[in-house]
Amino acid sequence: MGKAAERRQNLRDALIRAAEHTISREGLAGLRARDLAKEVGCALGAIYNVFPDLDALVLAVNARTLAAFDQFLGETDLSKTGQPADLDPAVARLVRLAMAYLDFAVSYGLRWRALFEHRMAGKRQTPAWYIDAQKPLFSLVEEPLRELRPELDQEQRRMLARSSFAAVHGIVHLGLDGKLLPVEVPVLRRQIEEVVVALGLGFRSASSTPRKRPRRGRSSEGRQRK
Amino acid sequence: MGKAAERRQNLRDALIRAAEHTISREGLAGLRARDLAKEVGCALGAIYNVFPDLDALVLAVNARTLAAFDQFLGETDLSKTGQPADLDPAVARLVRLAMAYLDFAVSYGLRWRALFEHRMAGKRQTPAWYIDAQKPLFSLVEEPLRELRPELDQEQRRMLARSSFAAVHGIVHLGLDGKLLPVEVPVLRRQIEEVVVALGLGFRSASSTPRKRPRRGRSSEGRQRK
Repeated sequence: MGKAAERRQNLRDALIRAAEHTISREGLAGLRARDLAKEVGCALGAIYNVFPDLDALVLAVNARTLAAFDQFLGETDLSKTGQPADLDPAVARLVRLAMAYLDFAVSYGLRWRALFEHRMAGKRQTPAWYIDAQKPLFSLVEEPLRELRPELDQEQRRMLARSSFAAVHGIVHLGLDGKLLPVEVPVLRRQIEEVVVALGLGFRSASSTPRKRPRRGRSSEGRQRK
Repeated sequence: MGKAAERRQNLRDALIRAAEHTISREGLAGLRARDLAKEVGCALGAIYNVFPDLDALVLAVNARTLAAFDQFLGETDLSKTGQPADLDPAVARLVRLAMAYLDFAVSYGLRWRALFEHRMAGKRQTPAWYIDAQKPLFSLVEEPLRELRPELDQEQRRMLARSSFAAVHGIVHLGLDGKLLPVEVPVLRRQIEEVVVALGLGFRSASSTPRKRPRRGRSSEGRQRK
């Protein structure tokens, strides 16, 4: 790497660290280019030499949070501790992942919030690399769903993993906000377990008793074929 | 009502209408006391003669949105159209309520968002009257749960209604934001149906096959008693 490229890289890293620090203390709303420039000791314009805009900097921070989240979920997923012995293993795995999401949200606080509070300025699309960075997370949820809903094709399973994630996210989000649900983590934990166990059992029974309106035409694995 | 009281009431109503209009166009973030005073033609300080602070004004707007939502849900709940004939009626009712929530969110847009984006300034508590205003909504969700999980006591059912609501909220919220899920309403509708049907079936089967760790001590209806 040349001197100039190295300097750029160093500035980039310093800005990401500074932005991450600000987000974890003050949230996304506390992020201001002027303050960041001051903190890393560069001119305001220098930020825009290494990031096209502030959105790109936020996405770089969020990608780091996603990577931490991925590692966090993966570790929880491997540990079998606390798994209720009487529960369907695939359902128990969904519960473990949901609990890990709550734990992650509690420990990452405002950095966790920044993941879903950030919106691209104007009407710009979220870049593809960032969308790709979310994928490994969902594949963890897709695995137990493959077990619980074997008749779904890949795309249906992919969607269901996201919807299930969003459902858990809703409880964690409104719960930690103290909206509708109490903010106490143990209570929230029990509520999440209650909902995710039902969801898992329901996936299993929806799969074994197909409804009168089966989704046809898209299933490649076709257990519901008439 | 005296002349002064009537003037206060008129100013109060005008401010609520103006704030509601601003929120529905620009969202909560667009609300500024100075602009509101200008719009209704009063002095800035006059706002604080009728509302202790801007939070109180936002809560008054949100209470109107909640009332509209309550009416919206109630009407959907009564209509039986579109109810799949082969589905457990209590599960079908949960699905209808969830769909109504999506429809409400789509049609109320930023006013809907203001319901959960608003946070009280400082560490102040949400006033009790506002928390009470949310209750009728959840009683609609509690009714099918009484059917699906008859062994729960009132407090457990109350909590489960809120957790189930929060789960649907998560899908609607991340979906309409275009986060994780596609923003297209018909796709979102199918995903919500998929999740809520599973949730309902799961509640039913969790109730009929109690787990080895029953919740004891709090159940007043006690079907799971050992």
